[in-house]
Amino acid sequence: MAMAKGPQAFPRAEYLRRLSSVKAEMERREINALLVTNSADITYLSGYTAKSGYVPEGLIISLEVEEPTFVTRRCDAPAAMHQMFFDSSRVIGYPEALIANPHMDGFDAVIDFLHHNGLARGRVGFETKSLRSESIEKFRTRMPEAAIVDFSDAVAWIRLTKSDLEIAVMQEAAAITDAGMLRAREVIRPGVREADAAAEVIATLIRGANGKSGTDVAHFNLCASPRSSTPHIRWSEDVFRNGSQINLEFSGVRHGYVSGLMRTFSIGQPSDRLCRVHEGEVAGLEAALAAVKPGATCGDVATAFNKTLKKHGFEKETRCGYAIGIDWLEPTASLKEDDRTVLEPNMTFHLMLGNWIDEDFGYVISETFRVTESGAETFSRLPREIFQL
Amino acid sequence: MAMAKGPQAFPRAEYLRRLSSVKAEMERREINALLVTNSADITYLSGYTAKSGYVPEGLIISLEVEEPTFVTRRCDAPAAMHQMFFDSSRVIGYPEALIANPHMDGFDAVIDFLHHNGLARGRVGFETKSLRSESIEKFRTRMPEAAIVDFSDAVAWIRLTKSDLEIAVMQEAAAITDAGMLRAREVIRPGVREADAAAEVIATLIRGANGKSGTDVAHFNLCASPRSSTPHIRWSEDVFRNGSQINLEFSGVRHGYVSGLMRTFSIGQPSDRLCRVHEGEVAGLEAALAAVKPGATCGDVATAFNKTLKKHGFEKETRCGYAIGIDWLEPTASLKEDDRTVLEPNMTFHLMLGNWIDEDFGYVISETFRVTESGAETFSRLPREIFQL
Repeated sequence: MAMAKGPQAFPRAEYLRRLSSVKAEMERREINALLVTNSADITYLSGYTAKSGYVPEGLIISLEVEEPTFVTRRCDAPAAMHQMFFDSSRVIGYPEALIANPHMDGFDAVIDFLHHNGLARGRVGFETKSLRSESIEKFRTRMPEAAIVDFSDAVAWIRLTKSDLEIAVMQEAAAITDAGMLRAREVIRPGVREADAAAEVIATLIRGANGKSGTDVAHFNLCASPRSSTPHIRWSEDVFRNGSQINLEFSGVRHGYVSGLMRTFSIGQPSDRLCRVHEGEVAGLEAALAAVKPGATCGDVATAFNKTLKKHGFEKETRCGYAIGIDWLEPTASLKEDDRTVLEPNMTFHLMLGNWIDEDFGYVISETFRVTESGAETFSRLPREIFQL
Repeated sequence: MAMAKGPQAFPRAEYLRRLSSVKAEMERREINALLVTNSADITYLSGYTAKSGYVPEGLIISLEVEEPTFVTRRCDAPAAMHQMFFDSSRVIGYPEALIANPHMDGFDAVIDFLHHNGLARGRVGFETKSLRSESIEKFRTRMPEAAIVDFSDAVAWIRLTKSDLEIAVMQEAAAITDAGMLRAREVIRPGVREADAAAEVIATLIRGANGKSGTDVAHFNLCASPRSSTPHIRWSEDVFRNGSQINLEFSGVRHGYVSGLMRTFSIGQPSDRLCRVHEGEVAGLEAALAAVKPGATCGDVATAFNKTLKKHGFEKETRCGYAIGIDWLEPTASLKEDDRTVLEPNMTFHLMLGNWIDEDFGYVISETFRVTESGAETFSRLPREIFQL
């Protein structure tokens, strides 16, 4: 029996719109065929969120054909048929003999497809940043009539400006994020293990909010005293104590989309130092959001933050944020002073103001926002305060 | 104030033993310096499990020096100082100016370190499989006196045979896995959302077992009717129903190590087809385990499974398993018929007998085991049955 289509996160017209943008970019770069191998780009152009990308697979887009073709490991083809918006006959499963085979892999099946469809010649686009050098060498060797054109990040630049449908999905993710942060406020207590608090928060992120479940587990960082200076650890085997500071960063996930959020918690009265940093950071955050409008640049936003924070006597070394959407970080625009990207409505950013100041002290706060016609709209509804427990 | 060392998952002598094995392999290949960039290899050689590897970082091993050096983004240096077994002075943070910079990145800091320490010449080992082609090009260009030697998977081959300390940690992970599977048996019921069951199971995996918490969330696949033919989806927004079949694959995590397990659940009486597949698969599983002993090959194990399954009228296309340890799959030995790897005591494998038979039907069962002096020892204590609910 054939695998049926599952419920689709977006209507067909939305995917065709995205594909049109990619095809326009292909035309601009005089590319006839494109192989998409970055997993977030595959999600964007098809709806696929299964975790099969640890072996070679790719979405093939041709200017001549409306729908893409997906070449994947045979056991993963049913999930693709179920999740991807296009006709299931366009999902091609390659045989298991290409797995853990020192001589061939799934990209040989991709190359065979390109040859059989007359796409292995002329200028062919590849997301070379997502490919191992040995794979690029294979494409070069087995497609001698093709010119390898680097298309890395081109789809990510198209992803930067969201549709209203995508914004709605990110808002669903944001509601889940908020529910997780509120759950953290309930469960973080002296004597509680960090892992037990993480379990409660992550379970909340999966259960979701407003009847919509989380669809995946994204990055999750719980960095508590004496590790408040670290940004990227899951949690430790320690327990919370009176006086502990806890820095949280996580997001709910809807169909691959996230809406990241950071908040700092304090068990008991926060220290003067923490209060002073917080005051400066929130002032900076508000200045940054006030600088957001179509026509302003990413650099303007970062400059507004940095200037305000400096007035409060602090500096932040890491950038002030980055484009966000599917799979968290988009590798395109950064909220940093030298980034000249011009803001447009419905671009989405994680204004990430984590500030890891000393080896023994860091602080976090952030907002995910979209650019509106006249300013910025943040997705979280939580107050910008140190959550004192 | 300096960041203090956290509790270490393994004693210093264990890391030095691992480093000695790597250095012996470097000597064999006539390499003076090695750059380790694969995240599982970094964990293996240092204890580091923070999630900072989405920007360039690397562990540098020199034959002349006992301890490695870690070059990472400055904000991630405190976590490395906290988690890595070696002296914190050997953690070097590179400036934020190298992030989201189109001209330079963290590998420029790595190259600077190699130059300043006389390691940028002669034969230098790189894990090229974990590097983008543009990074390899950068190493070539900026280190003209060095010969780039591919060291990909060499550390993974050393990881294949575990120490008794590592086995103990994998057994801790296995106890957590079992707790998660038993929780699944409690919460999967008709009318329950897949996400709500996943939330309960994942929370259990984080809370841990026997007083030892899970330290991370690993792969998690919940593939329920009508998606039992898919191996790699998280869960869907659907609810379980009477007659639903649910295929689960997940693991607890301890310090990066996992012990994967698959079991099939049925709400109500399993179908005849499911029972027949199960019977053949369990017979195959037992035949495979009986074939495990030092001196036998991976191929012998796979052949034992395949022959037995065939007697029951079924076949399985995907390989029968793979080496497992840190970050799940190790890219070395496979349990497939043509794999001639000779088994040695304390090699660990995920005997992964998931069988995605038709577009509408799949079945899963697995065991993680170690090779003993005379056979195989499985880590899970759960029965090899279809869990009927």
